[in-house]
Amino acid sequence: MAQLFHPSREDITLAGVLAALADPMRLRIVKSLMQQNDCMSCTEAAPCPGMAKSTLSNHFRILREAGLIQTSKKGVEHRNVVREADLNARFPKLLKTILGYAE
Amino acid sequence: MAQLFHPSREDITLAGVLAALADPMRLRIVKSLMQQNDCMSCTEAAPCPGMAKSTLSNHFRILREAGLIQTSKKGVEHRNVVREADLNARFPKLLKTILGYAE
Repeated sequence: MAQLFHPSREDITLAGVLAALADPMRLRIVKSLMQQNDCMSCTEAAPCPGMAKSTLSNHFRILREAGLIQTSKKGVEHRNVVREADLNARFPKLLKTILGYAE
Repeated sequence: MAQLFHPSREDITLAGVLAALADPMRLRIVKSLMQQNDCMSCTEAAPCPGMAKSTLSNHFRILREAGLIQTSKKGVEHRNVVREADLNARFPKLLKTILGYAE
């Protein structure tokens, strides 16, 4: 499997974070990941049960490549967690403010 | 001239605002408009002097259609102002938090 790309903390940009969150489905995914203590598989964090796997993977890829989430492989699954420490270091309160308005 | 489209306050969405601001040039335009007391023409608010007029118009259109700015016609010019009251009513502190991190 190809290595998953994650930007380093200092490569996370404001415009990139906003673009990644500029979609109701991705806002829901991040909100749902934040509400968990543990990391979640893509399917668990899916905003709606019937969503196609390819659509879901694409949303997770966009979030990952913008630095919003960290994805790790556990067996056959991808486990995801929000990069809260990195995001709060770069843009304190930004994520909390945005997610406060997400449905 | 065709009427310029502006969404009503209640039609301004979080994802729409984030998408409109998910671009370094548009972040600069909004920041520069916020720093003025008066409204500005598109050229005055341009993030870089050499930017093509069509590129600039496109950025202003995206901002206007997402509810970020109000554009009015004054003679041959378009005058622009940030819809602070509407944005703060819909998403208190969101704009301030985001612009605080814009260059």
